[in-house]
Amino acid sequence: MTKVKTGILGATGTVGQRFIVLLSSHPQFIIHSIGASSRSAGKKYVEATKWKMTSDIPEQVKEMVIKECKAEFFNDCDVVFSGLDSDVAGEIEMEFLKADLVIFSNAKNYRRDPVVPLIVPTVNPSHFNIIPHQRSVYSLKKGMLVTNSNCSTTGLVVALKPLQDAFGPIESIIVQTMQAISGAGYPGVSSLDIFDNVIPFISGEEEKIEYETLKILGELNSNQKEFKLLSSTNVSAICNRVPVIDGHTECVSIKFKNQPSPSPQQIIDVLDSYACEAQKIGCYSAPKKSIIIRYDNDRPQPRLDRDNGNGYSVTIGRVRKCNVLDVKFTLLVHNTVLGAAGSSILNAEIALSKGLLEI
Amino acid sequence: MTKVKTGILGATGTVGQRFIVLLSSHPQFIIHSIGASSRSAGKKYVEATKWKMTSDIPEQVKEMVIKECKAEFFNDCDVVFSGLDSDVAGEIEMEFLKADLVIFSNAKNYRRDPVVPLIVPTVNPSHFNIIPHQRSVYSLKKGMLVTNSNCSTTGLVVALKPLQDAFGPIESIIVQTMQAISGAGYPGVSSLDIFDNVIPFISGEEEKIEYETLKILGELNSNQKEFKLLSSTNVSAICNRVPVIDGHTECVSIKFKNQPSPSPQQIIDVLDSYACEAQKIGCYSAPKKSIIIRYDNDRPQPRLDRDNGNGYSVTIGRVRKCNVLDVKFTLLVHNTVLGAAGSSILNAEIALSKGLLEI
Amino acid sequence: MTKVKTGILGATGTVGQRFIVLLSSHPQFIIHSIGASSRSAGKKYVEATKWKMTSDIPEQVKEMVIKECKAEFFNDCDVVFSGLDSDVAGEIEMEFLKADLVIFSNAKNYRRDPVVPLIVPTVNPSHFNIIPHQRSVYSLKKGMLVTNSNCSTTGLVVALKPLQDAFGPIESIIVQTMQAISGAGYPGVSSLDIFDNVIPFISGEEEKIEYETLKILGELNSNQKEFKLLSSTNVSAICNRVPVIDGHTECVSIKFKNQPSPSPQQIIDVLDSYACEAQKIGCYSAPKKSIIIRYDNDRPQPRLDRDNGNGYSVTIGRVRKCNVLDVKFTLLVHNTVLGAAGSSILNAEIALSKGLLEI
Amino acid sequence: MTKVKTGILGATGTVGQRFIVLLSSHPQFIIHSIGASSRSAGKKYVEATKWKMTSDIPEQVKEMVIKECKAEFFNDCDVVFSGLDSDVAGEIEMEFLKADLVIFSNAKNYRRDPVVPLIVPTVNPSHFNIIPHQRSVYSLKKGMLVTNSNCSTTGLVVALKPLQDAFGPIESIIVQTMQAISGAGYPGVSSLDIFDNVIPFISGEEEKIEYETLKILGELNSNQKEFKLLSSTNVSAICNRVPVIDGHTECVSIKFKNQPSPSPQQIIDVLDSYACEAQKIGCYSAPKKSIIIRYDNDRPQPRLDRDNGNGYSVTIGRVRKCNVLDVKFTLLVHNTVLGAAGSSILNAEIALSKGLLEI
Repeated sequence: MTKVKTGILGATGTVGQRFIVLLSSHPQFIIHSIGASSRSAGKKYVEATKWKMTSDIPEQVKEMVIKECKAEFFNDCDVVFSGLDSDVAGEIEMEFLKADLVIFSNAKNYRRDPVVPLIVPTVNPSHFNIIPHQRSVYSLKKGMLVTNSNCSTTGLVVALKPLQDAFGPIESIIVQTMQAISGAGYPGVSSLDIFDNVIPFISGEEEKIEYETLKILGELNSNQKEFKLLSSTNVSAICNRVPVIDGHTECVSIKFKNQPSPSPQQIIDVLDSYACEAQKIGCYSAPKKSIIIRYDNDRPQPRLDRDNGNGYSVTIGRVRKCNVLDVKFTLLVHNTVLGAAGSSILNAEIALSKGLLEI
Repeated sequence: MTKVKTGILGATGTVGQRFIVLLSSHPQFIIHSIGASSRSAGKKYVEATKWKMTSDIPEQVKEMVIKECKAEFFNDCDVVFSGLDSDVAGEIEMEFLKADLVIFSNAKNYRRDPVVPLIVPTVNPSHFNIIPHQRSVYSLKKGMLVTNSNCSTTGLVVALKPLQDAFGPIESIIVQTMQAISGAGYPGVSSLDIFDNVIPFISGEEEKIEYETLKILGELNSNQKEFKLLSSTNVSAICNRVPVIDGHTECVSIKFKNQPSPSPQQIIDVLDSYACEAQKIGCYSAPKKSIIIRYDNDRPQPRLDRDNGNGYSVTIGRVRKCNVLDVKFTLLVHNTVLGAAGSSILNAEIALSKGLLEI
Repeated sequence: MTKVKTGILGATGTVGQRFIVLLSSHPQFIIHSIGASSRSAGKKYVEATKWKMTSDIPEQVKEMVIKECKAEFFNDCDVVFSGLDSDVAGEIEMEFLKADLVIFSNAKNYRRDPVVPLIVPTVNPSHFNIIPHQRSVYSLKKGMLVTNSNCSTTGLVVALKPLQDAFGPIESIIVQTMQAISGAGYPGVSSLDIFDNVIPFISGEEEKIEYETLKILGELNSNQKEFKLLSSTNVSAICNRVPVIDGHTECVSIKFKNQPSPSPQQIIDVLDSYACEAQKIGCYSAPKKSIIIRYDNDRPQPRLDRDNGNGYSVTIGRVRKCNVLDVKFTLLVHNTVLGAAGSSILNAEIALSKGLLEI
Repeated sequence: MTKVKTGILGATGTVGQRFIVLLSSHPQFIIHSIGASSRSAGKKYVEATKWKMTSDIPEQVKEMVIKECKAEFFNDCDVVFSGLDSDVAGEIEMEFLKADLVIFSNAKNYRRDPVVPLIVPTVNPSHFNIIPHQRSVYSLKKGMLVTNSNCSTTGLVVALKPLQDAFGPIESIIVQTMQAISGAGYPGVSSLDIFDNVIPFISGEEEKIEYETLKILGELNSNQKEFKLLSSTNVSAICNRVPVIDGHTECVSIKFKNQPSPSPQQIIDVLDSYACEAQKIGCYSAPKKSIIIRYDNDRPQPRLDRDNGNGYSVTIGRVRKCNVLDVKFTLLVHNTVLGAAGSSILNAEIALSKGLLEI
């Protein structure tokens, strides 16, 4: 099989490093070009990067020369992954799109764009159906821009999608997060701020959850040109930073529109049997189970459950009745795998399977 | 002024150690007797105790000989504070009560007893009014048993009391906690369980919050003999252990019965101006402000705010609208001061002020 | 190839759990029997165990029934690994040995025994040569008892062995450790003791390092019946517990007997080129490099380097002159892999290669 | 008593914040002027500062307007404390000195200057005797520049000074440190670097310890014009960063020139009875005991011992024989009190007592 040539933008940052780790052993993708800021451009990767992963820099990447993030330098990439910071992602990704390149972006800039899909790979791959319309809007032949979701939103919608499918609309969602420090990048959170502490605020995070959930769980119009956001669902998000390295824990309470609401056991059964499309079509990174149910009272725990399904599964436990809404549970998502770089990669695998990439 | 002679039960444990620290510099109380298990009884305190406070064992306590927790050994104490574990507190405290002693207990055993008040000192000191009835039930002359609340409940009701007073009944409460390790005592939580981790479960904790809130915020019948628990308030509690040493953080969402609900600013104004009875009657340990409002987005934080008001204040921030219920905010309570030993002591100060103690 | 049937004693503890993880995917060994205390015996493993590894209990082990640690129940095991606590290991291991079983033990009890070898697999496999003598002393046909070293000692001797070989006797060693909490087992270190803290003492640890180093780096007499401990080497160990989950860091200063002493660069060259016998004879678990040199100033670091060589490599950095002794450096060893269960397993692989096991 | 008007340079940084906390309740000193970078100058302190102390900003400081760090704005200060970063301290402090101001500096820039004393207040206040010579060199009437030591060196020399006085010259010192994150300022150490980790390197720290120890424990020539550094003492320092908020732990091994060396008990006796000059002359911040001996095996510990003597005491434990040098022990120093701002303040108190300040 011809390998898919990939480029990585923002390759020296924490999301970029995760892209490199995940792609370096990928059977279908090869790392062809890496891009970073003009400060790093021209340098060897090993020299320009403060590497922070727990495995070494892959040998094939060490000596690669970093390019500037300009479309002309990535023209021969079949797919470009963007781990760019939001302050530069807007301009660069648009330049790449207009140059008819294929971009899978982890940045927030175009998530709310009406012709850009916001796809959590184990949840709403049907939103790829807007791509023909997107290409027509931008007069593209093969290019496209696909975003994936905020890390906390990702975990949430994986849990809610099968419930919505099985039990109908969800009227109310209260989600409270306990988020890992790796979500803030590097150097990110100062140790003096988070040791022996909780920070009850993450800038912009609650707004992202409250919006993105509605787009991801919403539908594409029948003309495949417009997203219908959920309009009768109320989402209230409360975000906290806790002293955990990787893995976002989320306490979720929900109320269904249809009453009587399902029992905790019915909820568990539906979550446990959820099989996403990416699994069915055999995507390499798709986890055997999108959702893993833990029956011990004290699970999921970030340190013990974040690597479930190689970081692509969401782990759910403590499903029980809520005295205020209908039901509550706790979920865990690996914020830098499924919650970031992994979503981009699995999205690209889905696009490849669906024939959306010209290789 | 004659000093009040106090006894401390469970003096070698973590709550007992906190009692000793707080009482050792108290202007009205002196430590007269200390009790612990028969394993420690007969030994000097300094020898029997694995001391874990950050200040040294007070000099006057080091050489005190530990007694068994039997009423006969505490007969000459005006007040007995109990930091006993719940597996022994039930029997011992009842023996003390029947011996006509005055017990302020941090244990959970009698919190649900119909003639035992459950008092958070800055919230519901009016519940002391059941004491005459309690004495009559047990045929006591001067003895009484007063409990204080679970640590997380304590923080919650301090915030809710002024709101209920100002805006009427609260219909729904969803509270999610991030609790410190010191709440589990010593050795308590294994470091292997909580490093780089969150434990999404604390045994019995959610049930305590869901019950105790209703008793504390409820009323004593006009005959002063019976507690009327709140009957139209739904409480849903979600409890987590996080890697923090001291200070429980709680994310609270509430809905009022009366609509339209107050604005965030009205809520802030009421919280900020709350003055509890213990302050008004000049109790030594009563904080200048029961509630401290923080206006920075990223506060309260346990490491920075737990010692506010010497650990007797509750700090509240992030008051804002909730998309599902009416309003949400984050609060912080020092779990081993106001949330445990401090409540017992301040309750005793109130009882003293009210003339309920025979000194 | 016929698989080697293995038994695991102390299978529910932290060392036992590590044995299970490492053996469950081993190409030569299969887990045949598991033993634990009589409290657990008769139960299924999954029910008796508070599992603390970050991967799940291997499927084949979950339903295995735990046996009592008696030789009669492990008679059909080719090799028995012991992760027993020292308070019971002495008696049980001796019973197994006398029953002519093969035991590789992580316990400290027989490390100082004059006919029991103390083997760090990447350092002194030549000490297996005492086995014929051991068998003769105990009248064994195929049984034997082999111990591996204390976790901190293990890291130290891996660094010192090639230096001793290349530059002659080491006169003085000062080693100061910063040890991970996992070294204390479960529940082990209370979070209240080690959060935001260092504990400058680990019971018995300094004595172990000061003794075991001399036995491991010493020789077996030419008659292969007696260990000659190093007699002219002074070892001073200083042990601390730090808030790290896995991986012991050790700061080492040494002085050679032969002067002038080698330069830091000569030291680095010798360490970097060290190839241990286990690598040469192709043992499965032997790391590609026993010693990995890091050239960055700020390495090795436990979180980033502990998994080097799957936990079987020792990582060394900061090799430089010492103003008091000759040279100093910092090393890192994975305390529960090479420093514990992994040593036992690699020792068994060596014994298998050397034809010491009857399979 | 007329209060001493003080200025604080670098007032918004972590050392500056500690100066403010310590000075705000000082009986002799008042905070008169505060200085910071031109970016902050002109703003109110409360608005320009990311306050990180666990107590609130003192009321009297909140509204103070920050000045630029120019001598003309601090002319009316009797004493100026400098918590400046080393990249700007050199120029600014020299400008202040030449303007005849009195500066007590925590910065490293002039510690090696031949006419600037490097004073740990509980160790070598006799080095103030160079001030007349310094004034003559710079043609000053009342100004002077006094530095205090690196935080780790501070703890070390407090322990060594009484030993040197009692037992004669120390020939060799090996010190290995485990340093708190607060020593790196704010934001300082990234949480991703230090969670579940040790960093075995702190830039420039080992060199500081190896030099400053020799100057502090050395003597001023009889002409009071020149420092004689210890010339026959070898110091080897090994510095590590550990996940601790405040308090540097140091493992020290030493060898005396005079043999036989003192016994551990003799060492303990000398350390325990050490009374520094600052205590004798009644300086306000001088601790009752400069050195506190802990007899428990597992002490000192940073979380439990750092606040001993309000952070001005050094706590020492585990005094015992060393197999390589003569004796070893573990010490703890509060790195931001005695190890930084506190030293500057206590030095100023000593200068005041000695009549070196014109008030």
